Amino acid sequence: MSDIRKQAYKAKEASRNLACLSTAVKDAALEAMAAALEENIDQILKENGKDVEAAAAAGRPKALIDRLMLNQERIKSMAEGLRQIRALADPVGEIVSGWTRPNGLEISQRRVPLGVVGIIYEARPNVTADAAGLCIKTANAVVLKGGSEAINSNQAIVDILCKAAYGAGIPEGAIQFISSTDRSSVIELIGLNGIVDVVIPRGGAGLIKAVVENAKVPVIETGVGNCHVYIDGECDFQMALDIIVNAKTQRPGVCNAAETLLIDRRIAGKLLPLIAEKLQKHGVELRGDEESRQILKDITPAVEEDWYTEYLDLIMAVKVVDGVDEAIAHITKYGTGHSEAIVTANYHNGRKFIREVDAAAVYLNASTRFTDGFEYGFGAEIGISTQKLHARGPMGLKELTTIKYVVTGNGHVR
Amino acid sequence: MSDIRKQAYKAKEASRNLACLSTAVKDAALEAMAAALEENIDQILKENGKDVEAAAAAGRPKALIDRLMLNQERIKSMAEGLRQIRALADPVGEIVSGWTRPNGLEISQRRVPLGVVGIIYEARPNVTADAAGLCIKTANAVVLKGGSEAINSNQAIVDILCKAAYGAGIPEGAIQFISSTDRSSVIELIGLNGIVDVVIPRGGAGLIKAVVENAKVPVIETGVGNCHVYIDGECDFQMALDIIVNAKTQRPGVCNAAETLLIDRRIAGKLLPLIAEKLQKHGVELRGDEESRQILKDITPAVEEDWYTEYLDLIMAVKVVDGVDEAIAHITKYGTGHSEAIVTANYHNGRKFIREVDAAAVYLNASTRFTDGFEYGFGAEIGISTQKLHARGPMGLKELTTIKYVVTGNGHVR
Repeated sequence: MSDIRKQAYKAKEASRNLACLSTAVKDAALEAMAAALEENIDQILKENGKDVEAAAAAGRPKALIDRLMLNQERIKSMAEGLRQIRALADPVGEIVSGWTRPNGLEISQRRVPLGVVGIIYEARPNVTADAAGLCIKTANAVVLKGGSEAINSNQAIVDILCKAAYGAGIPEGAIQFISSTDRSSVIELIGLNGIVDVVIPRGGAGLIKAVVENAKVPVIETGVGNCHVYIDGECDFQMALDIIVNAKTQRPGVCNAAETLLIDRRIAGKLLPLIAEKLQKHGVELRGDEESRQILKDITPAVEEDWYTEYLDLIMAVKVVDGVDEAIAHITKYGTGHSEAIVTANYHNGRKFIREVDAAAVYLNASTRFTDGFEYGFGAEIGISTQKLHARGPMGLKELTTIKYVVTGNGHVR
Repeated sequence: MSDIRKQAYKAKEASRNLACLSTAVKDAALEAMAAALEENIDQILKENGKDVEAAAAAGRPKALIDRLMLNQERIKSMAEGLRQIRALADPVGEIVSGWTRPNGLEISQRRVPLGVVGIIYEARPNVTADAAGLCIKTANAVVLKGGSEAINSNQAIVDILCKAAYGAGIPEGAIQFISSTDRSSVIELIGLNGIVDVVIPRGGAGLIKAVVENAKVPVIETGVGNCHVYIDGECDFQMALDIIVNAKTQRPGVCNAAETLLIDRRIAGKLLPLIAEKLQKHGVELRGDEESRQILKDITPAVEEDWYTEYLDLIMAVKVVDGVDEAIAHITKYGTGHSEAIVTANYHNGRKFIREVDAAAVYLNASTRFTDGFEYGFGAEIGISTQKLHARGPMGLKELTTIKYVVTGNGHVR
């Protein structure tokens, strides 16, 4: 048996006892894990230094090194994250629904852990603590596979978390870390049907695509967001300005940032110059269709590829459309089903947009940037699902659980 | 573009209009589809005759031919099935939950169709009408891929259903049927990520395994059930007898039938002979472990493979265990997570079994045969999910839907 299969089996075994733990034990473990991170800041920083040095020596991009690098504050915030998870309500054991059949059979749906959750992520060591914490809270065993650039940091964090968790009553083996940096280890992990109950890839489009296409275990696809803001002909100009600037510039590198502005022909001549001025002040490069370039003379022409692109950068595509129908048609063609917004004062157009746009989250007079577990009030987030099975949109603790039917009778037979 | 991809695209396009149809239109279409089946019995029987003849000439098993063969009554019951689906409540549009955030943002989860559902099934022509009906009711477009043995029957049924549905206002293209009998067409269908939202295989273990292992689109795994009944030391003997006989013999060929009997050592000497007598009267062959064979002298020895086997036949494995803990350990090792039952009068053992057995449905003093959408009161069943994502256990209409978040604000930004 390969090492990865062995690890997954250990996780499976641990998951059985984990599923029956009380909330008190899980919460005590989360506190112990948080405290252990704080007590071992020096050790984590030492190991993280090795990773950062190696990445710099290899000439990796600055953004990657920034995500990779830890400092005292970042480690403290990882510990704080674990304490926040501890403070949330335990979803396990909830009776989701229940009823009695005419024959007297009593049926209930109870919320239970998924079992073994695989998390595949890139060079963000904070995901290690975050994912372990979310899984412990929901009584799932976890198999972590982090990016090779963060291998020393992740190994140090996992060792510290495991020692603290197991010392506090979590069954040994519940947190597994794949230390092989070989890409084939990912392929093996996502092929462990019947052992691993779900894999969640967290990272860039390439990683997610590779996992979705090669997995034999169920996958929750997360992340890619080619989000649009449509500004309808009847709208409050100031509201439109505020929302478009926020959706594009407040944090351009994340999946719920807007990438394309669609604007109704009826107001484009008047409003588009104001929007362009604001966005350009924020350093946004605009790429326009022909009609918008007649209004904004000096912007780059948009090519077909622009409409498909998730820039994750201070770039925005602009298109003038003939009202809400053309806006919806554009979103249907080019959108990724993440977050889509309309700004309008017209009841019917708002209602139409909400009904007809097929996305995880549809916004009426609010920024797409709200698609986030914390903003929705979940107190935690595992990722944002852009597929339709099991979870759609921001995933909180509940999305790391499943149900089982409990049926009680008095000798009932068919 | 290949034919199958074209068909899936047509389904996707139709799905957008379908999603916005009122319940009244969908229900009228279901009635029209039912009536059309009844009006075209002769044509369906003629086409079905070709399939049955070909299967007989090819020497296919009698059980397959029985599943394949239609008659007046079976077609009427397909029509009746569509009318039953029509009578169910429409799940689409339900506000599943909703709340207002401290900042005034209003968030709601609305139930919406999945989009395009692929159904891959074997030589049961009734699944064609059933799957089409369930998808129309839930406003999903459907791509049907039936077994090659039923190709003429399925094509006739689909033609009749499409004509009726489109005539009643369902968008053209919403029901697609893959007429190629080539196996590669299945591979292509389950690779259409981004077009097909979910594939549900309905059939034997081989089909399901092939789909799960090769799919790039999300799959809901259904079906395989190696189910156990554990008879605890403290139990009502008559109840134990009734449940075990029902679970094994009432319909042995289905996934929720019991395959292994586990019996507590404390009562095995007394109760096992009574059970064996009853089961043998029903024609059940028993295969026992050593201890049970000391009690029931004349039964076949069970080998390791027996504990893993879903017989789907009048065969039952028997094992004497040392109480509820050993029963749970056996189920954990050999079960497929479908349906598991305990018969006990002891509160603590019942509670333990319910908590610790990891299965879609756990029964306390009731037969495993109840794991069924109709028995649970759903009024319909797409299949029984044995995996943990999206749906677990019997799947009704709700399981053919997903949610979208609708977020309304008043110019809210982050």
